[in-house]
Amino acid sequence: MKLVDMPSALQQSTGFLLGRAAALAREDFRARLVALGVNAKHYTVLAYVAAQGPQSQSAIGTALGLDRTTMVQLVDELALAGAVARERNERNRRANLVQVTDEGRALLRRLGRSAAASDKAVTARLDADETAMLRALLTRLVAA
Amino acid sequence: MKLVDMPSALQQSTGFLLGRAAALAREDFRARLVALGVNAKHYTVLAYVAAQGPQSQSAIGTALGLDRTTMVQLVDELALAGAVARERNERNRRANLVQVTDEGRALLRRLGRSAAASDKAVTARLDADETAMLRALLTRLVAA
Repeated sequence: MKLVDMPSALQQSTGFLLGRAAALAREDFRARLVALGVNAKHYTVLAYVAAQGPQSQSAIGTALGLDRTTMVQLVDELALAGAVARERNERNRRANLVQVTDEGRALLRRLGRSAAASDKAVTARLDADETAMLRALLTRLVAA
Repeated sequence: MKLVDMPSALQQSTGFLLGRAAALAREDFRARLVALGVNAKHYTVLAYVAAQGPQSQSAIGTALGLDRTTMVQLVDELALAGAVARERNERNRRANLVQVTDEGRALLRRLGRSAAASDKAVTARLDADETAMLRALLTRLVAA
């Protein structure tokens, strides 16, 4: 649905404001990812494996809540882009490990810079202190 | 994707925090709407018509970015629940007006209370000043 023309009662809701702000951030970041040839799921998988070390496809899928079909496609696409490689798992051939390549690490650095640029664009109307305050409040709000 | 187990680099992104907070808010509110027998789109359509006055189905769809098929279904369901009525437009039979009934207005008040309760639950970890600060920062962030 469009984000304009909403009744003022809705606009006063914190939940609605969060949804609208998140939509703006998602759209800004999505446009930057397109320029790098990846989508948000590629980024998440790549960042996850880079942080956790080589993992089986099924372990990544379980951790990120992505189904098998989606995972196969994402890893195929990342492998095609040279960002990950499938490494043979000697103990279990069916559990080949996905690992991030040097090229993948370079892509991840570019993606990190895109995320930072997107954050900066999305919070352009706030000064540095206000942005820090927003992040601190959101961090507490989402704390498990 | 799951909201847990994300790499710390991602968790430091304002965009990611916004997405996660919005997902929590959406899920909390969705559960409350289920209890009232409606979904978020029903609520938006009902709130929009209540605020703008009787509208043709196509005008509502255009304003909210909902396609014709979706609009027909939403208005059918709201009519079945007694929340809206289709009022004949004498000047143009094809543009019958959708109007909110007394029952619809009562539902809207219950929905408003649910939205307030959801906001309160979602921001439970923040005190009143912090919640007000969050809303003020988000309002500026999403300002057109």
